[in-house]
Amino acid sequence: MLSFILMAANGLARTGTLSTAHGDIRTPAFMPVGTVATVKAMSVRAVAQTGADILLANTYHLMLRPGAERIARLGGLHRFMHWHKPILTDSGGFQVMSLSELRKISEEGVTFQSHIDGSTHSLTPERAMEIQQLLGSDIQMVFDECTPYPATEQQAAQSMQRSMRWAERSKRAFSPRDGYGVFGIVQGGVYPGLRAESVAALTGIGFDGYAIGGLAVGEGQGLMFGTLDVTCPHLPENRPRYLMGVGKPDDIIGAVLRGVDMFDCVIPTRAGRFARAYTAQGEMNMRNARFAEDAAPLEEICSCETCAHHSRAYLHHLFKAGEMLGPMLLTLHNLTFYQRLMQGLREAISAQNIAVFAGDFLGRYQGGEA
Amino acid sequence: MLSFILMAANGLARTGTLSTAHGDIRTPAFMPVGTVATVKAMSVRAVAQTGADILLANTYHLMLRPGAERIARLGGLHRFMHWHKPILTDSGGFQVMSLSELRKISEEGVTFQSHIDGSTHSLTPERAMEIQQLLGSDIQMVFDECTPYPATEQQAAQSMQRSMRWAERSKRAFSPRDGYGVFGIVQGGVYPGLRAESVAALTGIGFDGYAIGGLAVGEGQGLMFGTLDVTCPHLPENRPRYLMGVGKPDDIIGAVLRGVDMFDCVIPTRAGRFARAYTAQGEMNMRNARFAEDAAPLEEICSCETCAHHSRAYLHHLFKAGEMLGPMLLTLHNLTFYQRLMQGLREAISAQNIAVFAGDFLGRYQGGEA
Repeated sequence: MLSFILMAANGLARTGTLSTAHGDIRTPAFMPVGTVATVKAMSVRAVAQTGADILLANTYHLMLRPGAERIARLGGLHRFMHWHKPILTDSGGFQVMSLSELRKISEEGVTFQSHIDGSTHSLTPERAMEIQQLLGSDIQMVFDECTPYPATEQQAAQSMQRSMRWAERSKRAFSPRDGYGVFGIVQGGVYPGLRAESVAALTGIGFDGYAIGGLAVGEGQGLMFGTLDVTCPHLPENRPRYLMGVGKPDDIIGAVLRGVDMFDCVIPTRAGRFARAYTAQGEMNMRNARFAEDAAPLEEICSCETCAHHSRAYLHHLFKAGEMLGPMLLTLHNLTFYQRLMQGLREAISAQNIAVFAGDFLGRYQGGEA
Repeated sequence: MLSFILMAANGLARTGTLSTAHGDIRTPAFMPVGTVATVKAMSVRAVAQTGADILLANTYHLMLRPGAERIARLGGLHRFMHWHKPILTDSGGFQVMSLSELRKISEEGVTFQSHIDGSTHSLTPERAMEIQQLLGSDIQMVFDECTPYPATEQQAAQSMQRSMRWAERSKRAFSPRDGYGVFGIVQGGVYPGLRAESVAALTGIGFDGYAIGGLAVGEGQGLMFGTLDVTCPHLPENRPRYLMGVGKPDDIIGAVLRGVDMFDCVIPTRAGRFARAYTAQGEMNMRNARFAEDAAPLEEICSCETCAHHSRAYLHHLFKAGEMLGPMLLTLHNLTFYQRLMQGLREAISAQNIAVFAGDFLGRYQGGEA
C-alpha cells in the first residue's frame, strides 16, 4: 500500500505527496530513466542533486542483464545502484512488444529472444511481478500489452481486454507490503469508450495508482491530450496518475493541466548525450558554431553545477571533441531543468496560479529552438 | 619563477612543495592528464576529490581545438575548464613527433597536419611558449624533440643537441612572471654521456625544473631506471625533477627511489575507461566473470566514492552493459589510488621509511594481476 495525499488542486491540475518505503515523491513528479540500473552519464549523487525524488528502471533490461535473481542476491536494486530513494519499475511489456520480430504473444504471456545474446525468455504477468519484487521496486507496474498506433477500434479493444486480464493476474501475483505498491495501466488506444472501459476494469480490481499507457507512440500531442481529456475524469481522484514515456516540457505541462501526476521519459538524458540542451528559452544544439566563444552559462538562473561552473563555449568544445564530460554535464543540466519545471508546476498549483505559469513558460519556450 | 622547498630526503627520494600562481604541489606528485581541457570521464570536482594538486593539459590538442587564442579570449585554461589549481602544459613536441607521416622537422621547428581536419600548422619553440602562455599554464615545458627508441648514439646526440638549441630559444621566448615557470627537458636516449651533456646544457640556461624526456617509449623498466640512475645525480638538488609520461605504480616507486619528484601518465584514466582497476593487490579486469556477484568494494581501504558506495558486481555490470558510469566510477577510483600511492610515498619519505614502504607495496602489488 502507498499513501497519496493531495495538497492542492488548480483546475484539473493537482499537487500532492506519494509516500513509499524509500521516501516521499512530490507530485507532479518527473522520473529520470535508469534503464540498466544507472541513469546514463550520471552518478546517483548527481541524480539526487537534480532534485529527483524517484527514478525508473526497466524490468526487461535488468532481467536479461545482470538478472533479477542476481540483483536480489546482491541486496536489491536500491543497494545495487546505491540509490536509496524510491524506484518505479516498468513491467517489461513495452520493451518486449517492440521486439516485433523476436517475440510471440499468447494469452499466457510473451516469449522472446534477448537482444543481447539471442537467448529465449518469457514474461508473464506473474513473472513480471516476481522480477519487480526481486528488484525491490517501490512501485511495480502491471504486465500489459502496449497497443500499437495506429490500431483499429477492434484491435485496440482486443488488446486492451487482454491487458485487463493480465492486470488482474498481475494484481493477484503482487505481494502487498507496506510502502510498496502496484499501478494498473489504462489502455484502449485513442478510443474514448475503450479508455473508459479500461479504467472501469482497473478500478474494479483496485490499484495504488493508475498509469495511462499506449500514448506517446506516434499519435501526436493533439490526440494524446484528447485521450487524457477523456480518460483522467474517470480515474479516482485520490490515486496518482502516471503518463508513461512522456515527454517534452510542453507535453508535461499539458498533461499536468489535465490532471496527470507522474511522468518518465528518456528525452532529457538522451538529449544530454546528443548535445541538446533544454532551457527556459527552448532547446539549443551545443554543437552549433555560435556557441564556440559564448562565455555565458547555459542558463543564468539554473542551479546545476554545469551552469554554475561552465560556459556554453566549454560545452561546445567538449561535444566537438567527443569527450564524455559533455554528456555528463549536459545530462546533469537537462535533468535539473526538468526538475525545476516540476517544482515550478507544483508551486504554481499550490498558489492557484497554474494557468499563468503554463502560459508564461510556453510563451518563453517557443516550442523548440532557442 | 617557482619556489620549490624540499622538506625531507630519504636516500635519493625527496619530498617537498612546489608553489605556483594557482597553489602548491606536494611532491612526489602525480598529474592526471586532461588532454583537451578535461580529464576524461571526470568532473573537475571529482579530479580535485582524488587529491590531485595539479593536472597536465596538451598543447598539441588544445592548439588545434578549440585553439589557444580562443581559450585566451575565454579567460584562459583554468577558467575554461573550471580547474583553479595548477596546470602544467606540455609543449606539443611529443605529439607532433609521433605524427610520423604528417610532419616535417627543420631547425626552425615542425610543420604538421592536424589529425582532426588535415589543416597545416607549425610549432616552433617560440610558438610553443606563446601557446602555453595563452593557455595560462603555471608550468610550461620547452619545445623539444623526443628522440625515438631505439636510436644510435649519433642519432640520439644530434637529436638531443637540437633539443638543447630549442630549449635555449624556449627559455628566451618565455615571459617570466611570479608563480609561473618553465621546465627544461633532458634528452640523450639511453646514453649516459649524452644525458650528462644535456643536463649541463640545460642547467647552463637555467630552468625552474628539469624534466627527463625520451623515456617510457619502449626501452623497458630496466633501461629507464638505469637512465635515471645516471641522470638524476647531475640535476640540481633544489629544483623539481619530472619524469614525463610515467607510469605504472612500480615505475613511479622506482623513479621516486631514484630522486624523481613529478609524474604524469594516462594509465589510470585510460585503464578506467577499459575496465582495468588499480588496487593495492594489483590490477583487476572488471569485465571478468568472477566479479559478477562480488558484493565487496574494489578496495575496503579506499576513500573514493566508488569504493564507498558501489560493489565490484555493480562495476562489472556497468562495463558489461557498456554504460558510461563504468568509466566514470573506475577512473575516479584509479586516480584516487594513484594519489593515495603518492601520499604514501610522501609520508614514507618524511618518516625516513621509504625502503620499507616500497618493499611492502611492491610485495603486495605482485607486479600485475590481483
